[in-house]
Amino acid sequence: MTPDPRTATSRFDADALTGFAQALLVAASMPDDRARDVAGILVEGDLLGHDTHGLQLLPSYLAQIESGDLTVQGEPVVIADHGAALTWDGLRLPGPWLALRAIEVASARARTFGTGTVSIRRSHHIACLATYARRVAEQGLVLLLFSSAPSGSSVAPYGGTRALFSPSPLAIGFPTSADPVMVDVSTSITTNGLTGRLAREGGRLPGPWLIDEEGRPTDDPGVLVPPRAGTILPLGGVDAGHKGYGLALMVEALTAGLAGHGRSDPGARLGATLFIQVIDPQAFSGLPAFREQMDWVATACVENPPVPGGDRVRLPGWRGVSLREQQLRGGVNLRGSIVTELSQWADKLGVPLPLPMETTHD
Amino acid sequence: MTPDPRTATSRFDADALTGFAQALLVAASMPDDRARDVAGILVEGDLLGHDTHGLQLLPSYLAQIESGDLTVQGEPVVIADHGAALTWDGLRLPGPWLALRAIEVASARARTFGTGTVSIRRSHHIACLATYARRVAEQGLVLLLFSSAPSGSSVAPYGGTRALFSPSPLAIGFPTSADPVMVDVSTSITTNGLTGRLAREGGRLPGPWLIDEEGRPTDDPGVLVPPRAGTILPLGGVDAGHKGYGLALMVEALTAGLAGHGRSDPGARLGATLFIQVIDPQAFSGLPAFREQMDWVATACVENPPVPGGDRVRLPGWRGVSLREQQLRGGVNLRGSIVTELSQWADKLGVPLPLPMETTHD
Repeated sequence: MTPDPRTATSRFDADALTGFAQALLVAASMPDDRARDVAGILVEGDLLGHDTHGLQLLPSYLAQIESGDLTVQGEPVVIADHGAALTWDGLRLPGPWLALRAIEVASARARTFGTGTVSIRRSHHIACLATYARRVAEQGLVLLLFSSAPSGSSVAPYGGTRALFSPSPLAIGFPTSADPVMVDVSTSITTNGLTGRLAREGGRLPGPWLIDEEGRPTDDPGVLVPPRAGTILPLGGVDAGHKGYGLALMVEALTAGLAGHGRSDPGARLGATLFIQVIDPQAFSGLPAFREQMDWVATACVENPPVPGGDRVRLPGWRGVSLREQQLRGGVNLRGSIVTELSQWADKLGVPLPLPMETTHD
Repeated sequence: MTPDPRTATSRFDADALTGFAQALLVAASMPDDRARDVAGILVEGDLLGHDTHGLQLLPSYLAQIESGDLTVQGEPVVIADHGAALTWDGLRLPGPWLALRAIEVASARARTFGTGTVSIRRSHHIACLATYARRVAEQGLVLLLFSSAPSGSSVAPYGGTRALFSPSPLAIGFPTSADPVMVDVSTSITTNGLTGRLAREGGRLPGPWLIDEEGRPTDDPGVLVPPRAGTILPLGGVDAGHKGYGLALMVEALTAGLAGHGRSDPGARLGATLFIQVIDPQAFSGLPAFREQMDWVATACVENPPVPGGDRVRLPGWRGVSLREQQLRGGVNLRGSIVTELSQWADKLGVPLPLPMETTHD
């Protein structure tokens, strides 16, 4: 019997994958420099182990170039610029390219004014937030990155039953003397990714993290699948969900409010409203003082006595950084289902898929 | 039998209470303008219904003036100023006075540069965060206020068992066309205030929000009382506490990291390290566009069908604003235990306690 390629895992050279993804995007009409940024961010998602936010996204990006929902030509429109604060209309241009440009500008402004903030309406999807956090932190800077999806709603306000918010993540990256810390958390108790996968597999969540359309707590992800109209609880869940609800409102104000674009705008398509802020510790008490404080905290975390049966306490992002280094050397793991989808686009656009370094079957 | 005054509740005129608190602080040697700010913020905590962060704090402030832990004379030292970013050493000066001064400066910088940030090391305690959020939001501005207590530790990093972080709150205030929204949430699943009260009363928490010193989940607040060395779980609790842990690290980086002062500094006393950022929506897409987005979201919240048996969905802070208006008209409720403590300071410092408008006994 021939093994099913969809249940296999293949390892690919990271540079070869990036070149492949870039070539696919260029074949789909994206300018080369933008394609390089998008490919680099997607492959880095896989490198860091965020495989739901890596190359798995590329087929949808390619399809949206075809449908016109992802714009490839043109420049973002500068709506406002007040020194430390800029507002852009992203015109549905490639998210990773826009976000990296915004981070460049915000970093330069932060070097001058102490902080630099770029608010972006109508960005296309930006993939894995931690990839940006790592890049900024490695420059000795702090990144705050808040994102909301104006067309996505799977989370009700606490005490309510109708979906309103997206899981609306917030991310921070900051340097230490060791690896950078990269926090990337949704303001809901879980994400659309996990609930969607469990719903397909008939699985259950670890606790009553959802409510059905009547407001009854449940661990059954099936309540989220139409025609059911359940919702994901805010972070804090049944008991303390007012906190996640407050955080969702914070993300909403900093993204949709400042960008002047959001859920109130009809016909919003897949995309993101972004709040990108770079902070230069050198403009405050100095980078050495920042590192001294955060090194102390990082050490107090990793040396903290673990809970029974638990592993050593980790800093958010450190496992990803180490996995990235390992996969840069030894190859990037891609699930067979992703490889299969990429092969179809490779055939369609006439771009050869790189040969895997190794393929293993479950 | 004479009723126990400690179990009574008295209503006082708000202005009379503010004048009284100010006079006590002045009698304890605080300059008049600083005393006015501190008194105003404390009484506003009670007005908003945050009675653990209102006048209940005044006796400890007065005691710390006596002990020298709360400084009353001198100006904060400007350590750095880069236009949109300032760093102050607060020299343990009165927290509310410092925070209001910082908000003034940050607001002026935000009007010029779009955002204004003040990092403060060695502030004294700043009481109720929502009071600042309301004031800034009513100017049509957005406030981000993150606070950590370098000498306080009751929360372990997720997966660990040794207390490291304070509950480290984060607050945001922003305007709508109706009342401002004021979010004020700790990054832990509950606060020292609630667990302390339940421990004294022999009560239990609503769920396993704590772990004991061995890392076993429990609802018993007694595990936090020395010689026990349990900890409060980060927001998200047993299942999703990595998210609250990430948020605690975010607050730590923005407060201790930028201020260059924190847990690594020996002998830290009760106080706060602050990150105060004011954002001017007018410098982004404009205040009308900001309001339009957030009005839409606010309406979608309050009109959201409630969970079974639930009240109408509320916006964070709206109940406080309405309670404030009601108490400004009809008097501020103070628990008898607070009145008793304030009376002792009134006698000691020769400042007459205002007559209550009404006293009721349980």
